[in-house]
Order: sequence, then structure tokens, then C-alpha cells
Amino acid sequence: MQAPAPASAHAQTRSEHDLLGDRDVPAAAYYGVHTLRAVENFPITGTPISAYPDLVVALASVKQAAALANRDLGLLDGRKADAIVQACEEIRAGSLHDQFVVDVIQGGAGTSTNMNANEVVANRALELLGHGKGEYRHLHPLEDVNAGQSTNDVYPTAVRLSLQLAAARLLEAMEVLHEAFAAKAAEFSDVLKMGRTQLQDAVPMTLGQEFAAYAVMLAEDRARLAEACALLSEINLGGTAIGTGLNAHPQYAATACKYLSEISGIPLSVAGDLVEATQDMGAFVQLSGVLKRIAVKLSKTCNDLRLLSCGPRAGLAEINLPPVQAGSSIMPGKVNPVIPEVVNQIAFEVIGNDVTVTMAAESGQLQLNAFEPVIAHSLLKSITHLRAGCTTLAERCVDGITANREHLAQLVGQSIGLATALNPHIGYEQATAVAQEALATGASVYDLVLAKGLLTPEQLQEILHPDNLARPHARTAAV
Amino acid sequence: MQAPAPASAHAQTRSEHDLLGDRDVPAAAYYGVHTLRAVENFPITGTPISAYPDLVVALASVKQAAALANRDLGLLDGRKADAIVQACEEIRAGSLHDQFVVDVIQGGAGTSTNMNANEVVANRALELLGHGKGEYRHLHPLEDVNAGQSTNDVYPTAVRLSLQLAAARLLEAMEVLHEAFAAKAAEFSDVLKMGRTQLQDAVPMTLGQEFAAYAVMLAEDRARLAEACALLSEINLGGTAIGTGLNAHPQYAATACKYLSEISGIPLSVAGDLVEATQDMGAFVQLSGVLKRIAVKLSKTCNDLRLLSCGPRAGLAEINLPPVQAGSSIMPGKVNPVIPEVVNQIAFEVIGNDVTVTMAAESGQLQLNAFEPVIAHSLLKSITHLRAGCTTLAERCVDGITANREHLAQLVGQSIGLATALNPHIGYEQATAVAQEALATGASVYDLVLAKGLLTPEQLQEILHPDNLARPHARTAAV
Amino acid sequence: MQAPAPASAHAQTRSEHDLLGDRDVPAAAYYGVHTLRAVENFPITGTPISAYPDLVVALASVKQAAALANRDLGLLDGRKADAIVQACEEIRAGSLHDQFVVDVIQGGAGTSTNMNANEVVANRALELLGHGKGEYRHLHPLEDVNAGQSTNDVYPTAVRLSLQLAAARLLEAMEVLHEAFAAKAAEFSDVLKMGRTQLQDAVPMTLGQEFAAYAVMLAEDRARLAEACALLSEINLGGTAIGTGLNAHPQYAATACKYLSEISGIPLSVAGDLVEATQDMGAFVQLSGVLKRIAVKLSKTCNDLRLLSCGPRAGLAEINLPPVQAGSSIMPGKVNPVIPEVVNQIAFEVIGNDVTVTMAAESGQLQLNAFEPVIAHSLLKSITHLRAGCTTLAERCVDGITANREHLAQLVGQSIGLATALNPHIGYEQATAVAQEALATGASVYDLVLAKGLLTPEQLQEILHPDNLARPHARTAAV
Amino acid sequence: MQAPAPASAHAQTRSEHDLLGDRDVPAAAYYGVHTLRAVENFPITGTPISAYPDLVVALASVKQAAALANRDLGLLDGRKADAIVQACEEIRAGSLHDQFVVDVIQGGAGTSTNMNANEVVANRALELLGHGKGEYRHLHPLEDVNAGQSTNDVYPTAVRLSLQLAAARLLEAMEVLHEAFAAKAAEFSDVLKMGRTQLQDAVPMTLGQEFAAYAVMLAEDRARLAEACALLSEINLGGTAIGTGLNAHPQYAATACKYLSEISGIPLSVAGDLVEATQDMGAFVQLSGVLKRIAVKLSKTCNDLRLLSCGPRAGLAEINLPPVQAGSSIMPGKVNPVIPEVVNQIAFEVIGNDVTVTMAAESGQLQLNAFEPVIAHSLLKSITHLRAGCTTLAERCVDGITANREHLAQLVGQSIGLATALNPHIGYEQATAVAQEALATGASVYDLVLAKGLLTPEQLQEILHPDNLARPHARTAAV
Repeated sequence: MQAPAPASAHAQTRSEHDLLGDRDVPAAAYYGVHTLRAVENFPITGTPISAYPDLVVALASVKQAAALANRDLGLLDGRKADAIVQACEEIRAGSLHDQFVVDVIQGGAGTSTNMNANEVVANRALELLGHGKGEYRHLHPLEDVNAGQSTNDVYPTAVRLSLQLAAARLLEAMEVLHEAFAAKAAEFSDVLKMGRTQLQDAVPMTLGQEFAAYAVMLAEDRARLAEACALLSEINLGGTAIGTGLNAHPQYAATACKYLSEISGIPLSVAGDLVEATQDMGAFVQLSGVLKRIAVKLSKTCNDLRLLSCGPRAGLAEINLPPVQAGSSIMPGKVNPVIPEVVNQIAFEVIGNDVTVTMAAESGQLQLNAFEPVIAHSLLKSITHLRAGCTTLAERCVDGITANREHLAQLVGQSIGLATALNPHIGYEQATAVAQEALATGASVYDLVLAKGLLTPEQLQEILHPDNLARPHARTAAV
Repeated sequence: MQAPAPASAHAQTRSEHDLLGDRDVPAAAYYGVHTLRAVENFPITGTPISAYPDLVVALASVKQAAALANRDLGLLDGRKADAIVQACEEIRAGSLHDQFVVDVIQGGAGTSTNMNANEVVANRALELLGHGKGEYRHLHPLEDVNAGQSTNDVYPTAVRLSLQLAAARLLEAMEVLHEAFAAKAAEFSDVLKMGRTQLQDAVPMTLGQEFAAYAVMLAEDRARLAEACALLSEINLGGTAIGTGLNAHPQYAATACKYLSEISGIPLSVAGDLVEATQDMGAFVQLSGVLKRIAVKLSKTCNDLRLLSCGPRAGLAEINLPPVQAGSSIMPGKVNPVIPEVVNQIAFEVIGNDVTVTMAAESGQLQLNAFEPVIAHSLLKSITHLRAGCTTLAERCVDGITANREHLAQLVGQSIGLATALNPHIGYEQATAVAQEALATGASVYDLVLAKGLLTPEQLQEILHPDNLARPHARTAAV
Repeated sequence: MQAPAPASAHAQTRSEHDLLGDRDVPAAAYYGVHTLRAVENFPITGTPISAYPDLVVALASVKQAAALANRDLGLLDGRKADAIVQACEEIRAGSLHDQFVVDVIQGGAGTSTNMNANEVVANRALELLGHGKGEYRHLHPLEDVNAGQSTNDVYPTAVRLSLQLAAARLLEAMEVLHEAFAAKAAEFSDVLKMGRTQLQDAVPMTLGQEFAAYAVMLAEDRARLAEACALLSEINLGGTAIGTGLNAHPQYAATACKYLSEISGIPLSVAGDLVEATQDMGAFVQLSGVLKRIAVKLSKTCNDLRLLSCGPRAGLAEINLPPVQAGSSIMPGKVNPVIPEVVNQIAFEVIGNDVTVTMAAESGQLQLNAFEPVIAHSLLKSITHLRAGCTTLAERCVDGITANREHLAQLVGQSIGLATALNPHIGYEQATAVAQEALATGASVYDLVLAKGLLTPEQLQEILHPDNLARPHARTAAV
Repeated sequence: MQAPAPASAHAQTRSEHDLLGDRDVPAAAYYGVHTLRAVENFPITGTPISAYPDLVVALASVKQAAALANRDLGLLDGRKADAIVQACEEIRAGSLHDQFVVDVIQGGAGTSTNMNANEVVANRALELLGHGKGEYRHLHPLEDVNAGQSTNDVYPTAVRLSLQLAAARLLEAMEVLHEAFAAKAAEFSDVLKMGRTQLQDAVPMTLGQEFAAYAVMLAEDRARLAEACALLSEINLGGTAIGTGLNAHPQYAATACKYLSEISGIPLSVAGDLVEATQDMGAFVQLSGVLKRIAVKLSKTCNDLRLLSCGPRAGLAEINLPPVQAGSSIMPGKVNPVIPEVVNQIAFEVIGNDVTVTMAAESGQLQLNAFEPVIAHSLLKSITHLRAGCTTLAERCVDGITANREHLAQLVGQSIGLATALNPHIGYEQATAVAQEALATGASVYDLVLAKGLLTPEQLQEILHPDNLARPHARTAAV
């Protein structure tokens, strides 16, 4: 999380030059003067872009694809291209990530991130070609590594790619959680309980139905996330500075896109209008909205889990969450729903991130959005944390949930909500009278109906049979 | 916006009864005691649900479909069904909307809205059957109009339907705005101007490309909105209280859905898991996210329009917005970009509404979300206001935009950004030197390049030709 | 909510002129051509500014103060000034509010609202002087009513004043709710119950302490709201267009401020830096933040009330909320917590409004914020709805809350949380063992401690005495 | 950012015990079994609580104060107390921060953070007493270090303290930025320029007034931040689990508070109602609202700086921001406003964090808010990043801003906005005519007025004198 320490001795630095003048760069550093200035300019969060390996891999993938396209189009020397490709392959395999040192929140629309990538790739390629770092006359970060590119097409493309990589793992984690809920739905399929609306006793259902709903929600959210990711497959590589493709070869965009698809294994396409694509944050806003949707539902689910396990004595106490740590430094034996609680907090963070993304997207001006770094940062955080939350929730909570079956059965038996099921048989008015008497006297609906001779024990048995209570059935069949 | 005035004379009221006792209802009112209590309980915004005609129409549509399904399944007398259907048809045609008087923000998960609909339909049906209002022994708001239904399936279904009706008109308005931008894109296709990134002069483009980008954005947003609307087509009618379908006939859900599709003209389907569908706010959160996306991009577009028309003397002054009203009570002759400004504000409202929807959705508990009224209110507001914004922006602003062609050409001619186009021809280093000298001396890039003999006038003409500047071209062709 | 209908006959209109040309205005209208154009330009929400009487009153107050100041400084004829003052007095008393017809969401930084006020005041003043409406040569909306003013100082000043008027009533409603909670705190001061942390049984407390906390929260929020309102007392009247006071008399600001304080009864002061004050939205953002704080806490409180009344049979069932309407169209006898639910929804709306205010405030540019209308709209909505929520919550819910005392006592008796109180007497380790055995066997902590001979009945009685459980006491005193 | 590696050999671990059983802890670790489980339970962000040194220092301060209070009240052995105090002193001086390894986003309402602190303090104290780590029979993390405490009073108190420590440095950074703007205000006090409202040319002002407004805004924000911090001074230490003070000595709260004030150097007080204080997030919501306010205004200011420096040739080009890095990988010589851009992004993040804080605060239930960790995380991030933003903006941008004086003077000279100043002298109608003619013909207002003989050159000189244009002056003096 630290900026590189200033070199302590002359021998340990090399001199580099940019439009502001000369600067000493640590001799061992693969990054160069542009990166150095960015590190100094943006001492904001202490978190370097290497905190997002997906982004580093995506940047290397773009540089590799660009080099191959430039080589094919005769715009880059074959030997240089090979060295660049080799350097990118190494980075994609995990090397040199610690050289991506610019802060995740940075000005410049991602320019410093692109410069950092250009410099690291160039210096590693120089080494591969037998030159020393910084000997840019042999291979240049801008002229060669960045050839035919602009930050404004490289950076959005890399961000889109990194989000797809990260989202793929989130989709997997959601599937794990989905399976966990589905397994519990099956396990609890015969456990009758009272359903609740507006926190008031409503009508019976099974605990299995309750958990199945959580599984269904997740399946739907996965479908939405996959759709949102598909929007990220349209890239603007080749648009250069503002989408007009100035200085790019007419075949460059298509060629680079083809290579990038191959390298990443993700099918990508060139956006239809590159001017629009360069400034457009729509796919990010859409993705953020879907992440927020996932967060909303995960949070609702965790609220339910905490509510249903409220107890052990003075609450609903319908289910038990597995204990994973001592709950209190003062209350002996207390165990808290810490896993759902942490997922709630992740959800709150993701929802806040959505506002950050929204504001950043709205603030774009004319041909570019200068605030894409905080958009990338927010989305990568949201995806990464949601993924951790889903996995943790599945493995440390849902898998170990147990039901208090007797207690649940007891609550159904004494519930006034049973009166609803009698509606079609004794009429709404009589049902209401029974419900009110039950509430006032503490008697059970079952006993009152029998005592009043409204239905026979056989009829009641049939009407109140779990199979009939928890799913639609022909009314006439009941009596 | 007013609650009904208390009846001033005995003859002008009728007495109705609910579980809290008897109440006098105005004799002329089509609503009844449940509505009356709701009006008293929720004196919040002063805006009645009739402010959303789409919602009233959707409620009537659901009641009509339910009556037809119940009739077909032998659960509702044919004569009653006919009267209910007739009453609903009248409401769908615009009658009796002023009888939907409950506040748009209400507790009870929409129960009061459903009750209001039940009562208005029942009393109108009673009239059609030759009875007086309130003579519920002949046709009952709950037993007949609400037969086989619960607020918890009626209300979400009606809300989804109303959102589709409203969104269809938003899609039309977006198309109008899209056409307006596309027309300007064509009109300005030959107007060369400086593109800008990070508010700094970048490289040339055409004003047509700039406006085409706005059109493309809108087309994409329309596609997203249509997708989000498709999610609303899955309804939970037939799930009754919590999705288990208690008291509903097994064929009721499918039959009612079929009728509702016919009545509304929108193809609907029954959700696969009704328990999940009853509590699920996912489609609303998704829709809200897409509306926010539309708002973000409309706002960015309006920011651009205001920026490009900044002037008349001391700003960018690239385009002129048509004047639609005097701009100042103190500054003579001042005209302001009031139409883009109002659209910006609509966007801010929609973004705020998204947070409201998010919080309400997250706060659902167990088998139901009690806060759907504020979700419906927020979404209907967002859709309605966005629609007004799109239409207004198209008709009162974009259609009348003109370009300051000479000024734009002048800015391109004196721009330092032209140096970028020379990169491939004179090299990055020499291009930088020219750029810096131009900035320091005030000279033009064109003149400097000629003076230094770096390129011939013919080469420069070719390189700086608008056709070459504003779209990708083979480098070798240039020189 | 409707725009004025177009005049159907020549005799029913008068012609007015502005910089865009001539327009017919309804002869009966007190507003004029500027207002007419604004109504046409902004067909957004359908809600006119007259929906906020406080804003109309505030506008009239500013116009009155300005007229008096101009008269004193010799810049306005005494007879004209008298007529303007009289017209403003009438509007402040409630007249002509229906003439304030511009949409609450409008472009132009409030110019149309100011123009509407200028025109209504001018036409009423003309009548008072014996002239016809529209005869502006005798008294002019801009030259006379708006003399020495700009929208940019009039509108912010009026908005600030209107917020103070509205907030004063919110403070009253919060006091009513505070009293309601405090009364319940006293009523329940002897009702012992289990406190809960993280929804798990914790240690005992009284129900009175629980309700007292709600009262204390409200008292603190009232203090914060009063502080935020104080910031609104600094006005920029006299700054004219951008705060430089161009065209205003040097004594105008102070004189107008003095008159406005007198008229409104609210002590106001002139901002120290009028340039800053003209563009500054800080006080609005601060107020919105405090309203959000109030919303957050009200919502948390309502969540608690709904949770504590969860039941009647299968929930916590600690308290009962008074029934105010039937809860269900399908479930007989069901009563729902509709009042807390509506307050939750108001809170969600206020929190969304805060985001709207934030975005609008952030979007201000250079010497002015053009988006103040949506800020005013959002804040006035938040204040008005919060006020309705507080009053409704107090009168229709809190006042009627009852406690299930026996049930609460029972829960304390069987609670494992009592083990915490034994910590200091039998040690953390033994207390943990007792707690775990109690949980496993279903036995009570009390019985187990006695059975194991860890403490005597007298000691237990002393330790578990309500007075000792619910407030700090010297440990040595206990045994 | 890494969880501690699992011990690779038996000799390198020690065994610890909690209610879930035995676990091996790295022998060198100062944390213990509770911390270990928390690290495993919460693999969310990878950021440990040690990322916030202020929080670690605050925790040690609370533990130290508690030990001293317990010693004074005879509840903690003097030798143990001395060791605890010594350990806390070391941590406060910067030692052992790397032992605070629990993730910043964690379930359990801060329990794991408190446990981590208890264990690190205990093990260091054990060492100081000559014992080995883990020999808790000599000094126990819960019985001794946590004596008379609960997470629910320790954690909120530590968070409040840490926020005050962090906010103090933000206040300093804001003062640095304030000074930077004030210095520029003085430097530019004689630079006349056109003011703008709604991005349209309005009336003249000085560039100094423009920068003075930024300085004034910051001064006001500092005052608001100081007020919000004062609310953090009320602590709930001594309330233990739910605020009833169960198991705490009656004098403990006051004594511990006194010691904590001394240790921290910040005057603290015990909250009046500890039950309320334990669950109350009001001070955090208020602080977050004020941080958002600061963010809003900083962002607006940076928007202005970027707008005013828009250029170099095709924009407003009123001021120049100092170049701090090359702006483009493709456009030679381009320099971008990267410092304001990074501050904008910090602002967007802070505004998003505010939503996170809001949702977390609203989600508290009954006697505790379980989501305080994400509140603390969000606030500490916001404060830290805002501080970095203020310092960076001052030192790398504002200090080096220069004005394009000639260009600004030229714009004023040719401005139509000058017509406003003529209003009082030639009348609104003639001024409008002049303005419209100027706009249509391109002539200057000055020339037209002279040509028409409306005013003499001397009169115009007087009226348009910078001293008269930029501040209020008596009208009669002008002519």
C-alpha cells in the first residue's frame, strides 16, 4: 500500500524524462517517470491498482492484443512485438503486479494507469531484448507499447475486461449460495410453519418454500448479472483519443479486438459508434444497478435469516444459524448472526458504491468521462466483496442452518391465520368471528370450530392438511 | 388532492361497517368504509392514487380479469361477474378515477389501494345491477370483487401493469428525442470542431458526430428499458396472501393471467415460484436502475448542451439553444438554457427516487414487502417526469439548435490539438516541440510546420482534411 | 394541478409582451406573459408552486420588504410602494395562491417563480390603484415590483424563509411525538423485559427504558434541526445577479433584511460574502442531511415498533399497536402496523430526496446554482411529509400502544441472558456453563443456579431484582 | 492486507480455547483465538483494522482508561492494571498495530475488533509481567482487559474517539486549502472578469471575488465539521451491553470517561441516557452529512476550476492550472486538470459512503446497531480521503494557479452583460435594445451607447469602472 521509497543512492536510480523535465526513478523499478509523477500526485487511498489483479491482467491483455494487431498491420517491428507479447504474457501469469503502483483513485481518466502499464511492459520487454530498463530508444513505452492507442480506448477496454473476469467469479459464488439455499429448501420441504406478511402472522407455508424463494431470487439475479456482463463485451479499442480513430489504422480496431477475444477467452466486439462508446458509461451504470439489485436481495435475505433465528428464548426461534465465534465479551454463551451481519454490511457498501458510480457517470463531459477510475474502483470493490459475501454466507451460515421443527409446528397449530383457510368453507364472516374469539380467549381456531360444530374433525383434518395449506388446490376437493 | 369533505347532513351519508365498527360514508361516494379509514390514516402527501391514471386502469384490469376467471371456474355468479366487468370497463375508459382517493404513500402494502378498488368497482356494479351504493348483500367488495384474491397478488400485479403502460409512453418520448438528435447529427455532419477530453482541447471531430453520440445513447437506453419492462410481465396473480395460493382455485392463476393479457394487450405470464414472486422486488429495482441510467445520460447530455452553448460572448459559444423565455429579471437580453436545466433536475429527482426504491426494496421482510406503495409512487413519478423531460427537450430545445459554424472552424484552425494528427508523419517528439512552441508563441500549428519545412502545404492539406481528421484512415494514404 | 386553459374568446384575454414577442394572457389571470411561457415550458410534474403555501408567503414577504426598502431609499414611489405592500399582505394572508401556477420543477434557477410573483403582485397592486390588469405602464412587474432585485437574490431568500416556516411546524410535530414516547416511557417504567442486541436475547431492561430512548432520540434530532434552521437565517437579498450588488443601493441589503425580519417574525441577517452566498447551497445540504438523520431514526424506531408488535401468536408480541383499519382483504381479523409502515416509507422518500438535493447542489456552476428549484421542492416535500408522519405516528399509533406485561415477564424469567448478571458473583466460566446447560436442557438459569447450590434464593432474588437489572449498581451491594 | 499465515510447525503455535473449542494460534501472535476465528469468518475486503491507526490508538486509549477506572474502584489488581496501561501506552505510541488483523468489514457489531484489542493488550501485558503469551490465568483478555466493559460500549466509544482524531487532521487540511484560496483571492483582487449565471455571461466581478467565495465556503464547512465533531464527544462507556450498565460499578462510567479525556486530550462526557446512546447512530449520520456537504462543495469548486481552465485555445481559458504530469499518451503537449479530477472522485466516493452510512444506521434494531463497523469504515475512509484531497488540491493545484489577465479584460470589454450596469442610467428598455443590437451586430455595448449619444465617455468610464461594477455603490454617485 506504500508508494516506492525514494532511492537513497545515486547508483540505485536511473534518469527519465517527460514534458515536465528529468526525474530519478529507482533503478530496479519497471515503472518509469510518468508512473512516478502519478504516485506523487495521487496520495489518496494508499491502495495501488495492483489490488485488482483482474485489472492488471486486463491491461496486459490489451497491450498484447494491440502489439499483435500493430505487427500484423506492419506498424510494429516483429522483434519488438514479440518482446511486448512475452512481457504481457508474464504479467498475465502474475508477474510484476507489484509494479502497478498508482493509486486506485486518480485524476486523468486512467492516463496514469495506462502509462504505468506502458512503462512496465516496455521495461520488461527491454530486458527480454537484452537492454537495460529505461533504454527507451530501443523500445518506447509510448511509441511502441502504446502505438495506435490512447488511454481513452485502452483504459475503458481494460476496465470492461477486468469487470468480466471478476464478475465470472461472482457468478460462481452466487451459484454456490444458490445451491446452499436449494439444498435447505429440499431439507425443509416438509416443515410446516406460519408465513408472515407485514410481520404479522398470515397463513401457513413450508420452511422449504421459504428457502426455495431465496434460491429462486439468486437464480434470477444471476441471469441479470450475466446480461449486464454481456453489455461489457462491446469495446472501443481503436477509437483512440475521442472515438474518431485518429492515427489508428482502419483495420486496427477489428484486428485488435479479434486478438483480445482470443487472449482473454471472452468474445468481444467493436462498438458500432466509437465516439459514443468512448464517452459512454452506460454499461457501467447498468452493471452497478444490477450489483445493487443483488445487494438489495442478499440484504433482505440476511435480514430474514437474522429475524427467523432471533432468540434463543425471547424471539421467533424458527431456525438456528451455526455458531462461528463467541458473540459477546460480556454475555456468556451468546452467539450472534455475524455472517448475515457482514453480508448486510457488504450490501450497504455496494449500494453506496452505486451512488458513487452514478455521480461519476453523470459528471462526464463532452467526449470523455474523466472519472472512470472511481467507477472502476467502485465496481471492482462491489463485485469482489459480493463474491466474498456469497461464499461466506453459503459456507459459514446457510449450510449449517437447522430448523426448530416442533416449535414451528406448535405455532401453526395455535395460529389464528388458520381461519383464512376456513373462509371458503364457513364464510368470511364466521371465519372472522372465530378469529376474533380465538384472539380474545387464547383458544385455538381448531378447537373453536369443532366446539361450534362448524366443521367435522375429518373436514378440518382435510382442510388443514399441510399439502393443502401450502399450495393451491381445488376448493371443492376440500370438503 | 383533498380528502372528501365530511357529510354535512344525515341524508347525505350511508353507514358502512368493518372490523373497527360503523362509519358514515358520503352517500355519493363510490368508495366505502375501508377507503375512508385509509384517507384518515394517511394524510401524508395530499396526492391521491388517481394522480396515476395508469395505476387506476391497471387495478380495474386486474379486477376484471379476476371476475372473468372466477366466473369461468364457477366461483362467481354470471350476473355479478357481468356487472363487475362492466364497472371495470368504465373505469378503464376513464370514469370514476376521482373516487381513488387514498394517498399515494400509504401503509399496508397496498391494502388500502386494493380496498379502494374493490369498493369503487362494487358500488358501480351495484348501480348497474339496480341496487344502491353500499348494498353489499347483493354484491360484496371483498366476497365478490376480491374473490380468490389478496392485496398481495392484486397490488403487485396492478403496479407491474401500470408501469408497463407508463413505460410504453416513455419509450415513445425517448424515440422522439432520439429522432431530434439524429436529425441534428445529419444537419451538422459537415461541421468540423474541436473535440475535448477532460475539458481540454483534444482532436477534431464533427458536430454531427457529437450529436450522433447522443442519439446512439438514447437508442441503447431504449433497448435497456424495453428489457427491464419485459421482467415486469411475470405476475403473481393467483398466489393470494403469500404465494401459496391458499383459497385460490388451481386453475385460477393461469385463467386470470390469460384474461389480463387480453384486457391489457400486454403478454403476461404467471411467475414460476409464486412465493418468491410475492415478496420479490427485483424487477422494480432493475427498472429503477435502468431509469437511473437514462437519467444519468440525459443529464450528461444536458450538461453538454449547456456547456456548448455557454456564452454568448465569454463562453464556448459553439451552438445556440432556441430561446423559450426571458432569462433574467435584472439582466436585459439574457437568455438561459432553461430546458436542459429542467431536464437535469428531473434526472436528479429520478436518481434520488432510485435510492428510495432501493431502501424500500431492501426493507421487505419474510413473505412480503410492505413498502411497495412508495416503490410504485417513485417509479411512476420517475417514468412520468422522464417522459415529460424527453418530449420537452426534443421539442423546445434540440429541434431548434443552431451551430456557430465559423467560430467552430476558427477554433479548429488555431488548435494545438492538430499536432496529434501529425504524430505519425513527423514523430511524437517533433509534434510535441511544435505543440509547445505554438502554445508559447500563439502561432498556429499549421504555420509552424510549414515554416520549419516539416511538411509541404499539400501534405498538410491532406492530413488535416476533415474527412481524414474525423474518422480512421490508413496512415500510408496520408502522405 | 392544471395549466390554465387557453382563452376561448378574444374578450377573455389581454395581450402582453416580452422579448420573444406578444402573447394573449387570460384576462382574469393575475399572472402574465412570463408565467404563461414558463407554464408551457415546464409541463413536468403537474404540481404548481402553490402546492407550497410557505413558498408563496415567503415570496410575498420578500417583495413586500423590497418595496419598503426601495421606498425608504427613494427608489420607489410611495403610492406604488403602498399598493405593492397591500398586495403582498393579501397574498401572505392566503389570497391569490392559485395564481402561482408554474411547475415546482422548472429550469431557470427560479426565474419563473420570481416572475410569477412579480406579475401577480403587480396586477393585484394595479387593481388596488384602480387600473386594469396588464396596464404595466402604471406599475411594472420588473421595474417596480422587482426593483433592485434579481431572481438570484429573491429566490434563495424566499426559499430559505419558506423552509424556516415549514420547519417550525415540523419541530412542533416532533415535539408531539416526543411527548407521546415520553408518556409511554413513564407508563411502562416498571415493565421488565429482555433487551436484545443483534436480535439475540441480551440482558433485561424495562420497556420504559426502550420507549425513553425513542423520546431522547427525537429530542436530539429537534436540537439538530433547530441548528440547521439557524443557518437558513443568513440571506443574500441585495446581492442582485451574482452577489456583487450591481444596481442595488448600498443601503438596500441591510434595509430590506430589516423589513423582512419584521414581516416574517424571523430574525434574518445579511450574509458576509454575498458572492459566496449567491452560489452557496451549503445550508440546504446541511438541512437535508439533518432531515435524513431524522428520517433514519424515525425509520429505525418504526422498524422496532413493527418488530416488537410482531404476532399476534407467532412473533415477539411484546406490545400491541392500536388497530386503525382492517389489515387484509383475504385474512379475517388480521391487523397490520400500517402507521409505522407509512412512516418508514416517508423516511425512504426523505433519504432519496437527500440524494436529489446532493446532486443538485454539486451541479452548481460558477456564480449560481441553476438547480435550486428541485432543491426547494425536495426539501419542502421532506419537511412536509416528515411532519405528517410524526403527527400521524403519535396520534394514530404511539398514544394507543399497550404492553403484554405477563408475556414479557415470562420471557425474562426463562431467559439465558440472566446469566450475564451472575458473572460478577459466580464468575464468567461458571456462568457460561450454566448458560450452555440451560440452552441445551430447556431449564431456567434460576433453577440451575439454585440446583447447583451456586447462590442462595435470597442472593438470586437480590441480583435479579428489576431495580438492579435495569440500571448500574454497586457490585458489592448485590451479594 | 493478508490474514496471518497458518503455522507450519507445532512448535510455532500455542493452543487457545473459546466456546467453540480449541484452536492453534501462531506462537508469535499477540492476538488470540477470538481474533483468529474472526479473520477466518470475515475474508471480505482484505483490509485489516490496522489500516486505521486512529482506531487502534482509540481502542488502546479506551482499554487504558477502563483499566485505570477499574483499578481506582478496586475492581482490578494494581499490578495487572499497570501492565495493561503499559501495553496500551505502547500501542498508542505505534507498537503492535500489525496485530490488529480483523477485516474492517465484519459482523458482530465490532465484537471482533474489541476481542482483537483485548487479546493484543492482554498478551503484551502478560509479557510485561514476565509471562508467556496465552497464559491467560495470569491476566485474562475478557476478565481483566475487558473488565466491566462490553463491545457495545467499548467499540462505539473507540470509534467516536478515532473519528475525532482523524477529523482534527481534516480540519487542518481544510485550513491549508482555505489559505491557498484566500491567497489567490488577494492576488486576483484587481482582475476584472465576467461573472456567469447558468453558464451564460452575466455581469462583471473580480477573479479575486470568485476565489474568495471558495475560501469562504471552506471556512463555513470547517465550522460545520467542528460542530459535528462536538457531538462525538458524548460517549456511552459504562453502559455495558445495552446501556443499563449491568455489571458496571456505579462510578465506573464517570471515572473511565475522566481518564479517557485525559489520555486522549479530548474533552469527553458521559451520555445522559446510556440506553439511547448505545443504539444511537445519530452523531455518525450527522458527521456523514457534513462530510457530504464538504464533498459537494469541494466538487463544485473543482468543477469550476476545470471549467475556468478549459482550453488552452478552444475554451474559457480564464485561468491556468499548474501542470503536474503529462496529460495524454497520444496527444503531444496536452496537460489535464488531474488534481481537481481526483478531488471530484473523492467527493463522489464520500457521497456514496454517506448512503452506506445512512443504510447501516437505519438498519439498527432494538438496543444495538450491528452495522457500526461499516459505518466506522465509511467515515474513516471519507475523512482520510477528503484530507488527502484538500492537501493535494492546495499544494499541487491552487497554489500554482495563474490568471490570463488580458483575455479576461477583453471578455469584459466585449460583453453584453455590461448593459445591465446601464439599466439605472438609460432604463431597462433602452438597455435591452442596446444589448440586442450588440448581440446581432457583434458591436460592443460601449461603442453603441457612445454612438447613440446615450451617455458621455466620462459617464461610461465612471459606470464601468471596476470598483463600481464589482460591488454595490450608490446609484446617484454614478452619473
